[in-house]
Amino acid sequence: MTIREHAVKKAFLEDLAPGQVFTSDARAVLDAGAIKRFAGEFDPQPFHLDEASARPTFFKKLVASGWHTTAVTMQLVVKTLPLSHGVIGSGVDELRWPRPVKPGDTLRLHCEVIEVTPSKLDPSRGTVRVRMMTLNQHDQPVQTMVANLIAFRRPKEAT
Amino acid sequence: MTIREHAVKKAFLEDLAPGQVFTSDARAVLDAGAIKRFAGEFDPQPFHLDEASARPTFFKKLVASGWHTTAVTMQLVVKTLPLSHGVIGSGVDELRWPRPVKPGDTLRLHCEVIEVTPSKLDPSRGTVRVRMMTLNQHDQPVQTMVANLIAFRRPKEAT
Repeated sequence: MTIREHAVKKAFLEDLAPGQVFTSDARAVLDAGAIKRFAGEFDPQPFHLDEASARPTFFKKLVASGWHTTAVTMQLVVKTLPLSHGVIGSGVDELRWPRPVKPGDTLRLHCEVIEVTPSKLDPSRGTVRVRMMTLNQHDQPVQTMVANLIAFRRPKEAT
Repeated sequence: MTIREHAVKKAFLEDLAPGQVFTSDARAVLDAGAIKRFAGEFDPQPFHLDEASARPTFFKKLVASGWHTTAVTMQLVVKTLPLSHGVIGSGVDELRWPRPVKPGDTLRLHCEVIEVTPSKLDPSRGTVRVRMMTLNQHDQPVQTMVANLIAFRRPKEAT
C-alpha cells in the first residue's frame, strides 16, 4: 500500500459549507499481499484469502474485504479533510460497495460537504455531513458513504 | 487480539426469518498494541496512536479507530453468522459508534435478522438485513449497524 502525502490547512466549523468539495493527490494501492494480510486478521473468508480458494465463490477471484476498503478510505480521509481537531466520526449512513476492489487497484477519494449543523447544546461545535466516494483507477466508485463528523468552532483567541 | 472459536452450521435463504438472533461465544480483546498498530496503518490521528498525544484531544485518552471496531466486528461476524456462502455484504446502514473502544475492552456480537427479501431478478438468492450490535465487557454497545447481506437458496441437490 502506497500513499502520496498531501498538505492541508485547518478548517473550523464556520469554514465549512454545503457544496464544498475536498479531493487530494493522495492515492492508495491495494496489492494482493495487503488484501490477504487484512483478511487473514479480520475477514478470513476464501474470496479474500487467496486466488485459488476464491475461484468457486460468488466473487470468482480474490477481492478485498469491504472493511479493508473502509480502512484504506480512512487513510485517504485523514490526508484529505482538513478539520481543525482531526476527523472524528459519530457514524456513517448508506455505506455501499458498488463493485469489489481487486489486487492492484489504486484508490482515491472525493468528498463533498452536504450539511453543516451547529450543535444546539454545545456552542463550541457542530456536525458536518460529508458524502465520500472512493474511486478506483478507472474512476469507478468502489465505495460510497455519508459520514457524520464533529467540527469545532474557531476558538476566540485564534480569530 | 484473542478470538475463541465457535462452530456453526450452514444457513440458506429459506432458513432465515425476521426475529432470529445469532450470538456466539466469540470474543475479541483490543489491547493498546493492536489499537496503535491499526491506527498507524489506517487512521494515524493522535487520539488513536498513543496515550500522551491523546490527552489534549477530544477523547482525552487512547481510543480505537471506529474502523478498527468495524474490522474486529467482522472477525466476530464471520464466526457468528452461519450463511452458506459466507458473509457477503452489499452495504451497511446507520453505522454508529455510541461510545469509544478503550485498550483492554473485550467485544462480543449480537445479531438479529430484521428482514428477508428474495431477489426478484435472481431466484437463487435474496437479501437479508441484519441488525448487528457490538458490545463491550460491560454490555454497553460500542457499535451498531444494519448490514445488507446476500443469502443463497439451498441448491436442489442439497434438499
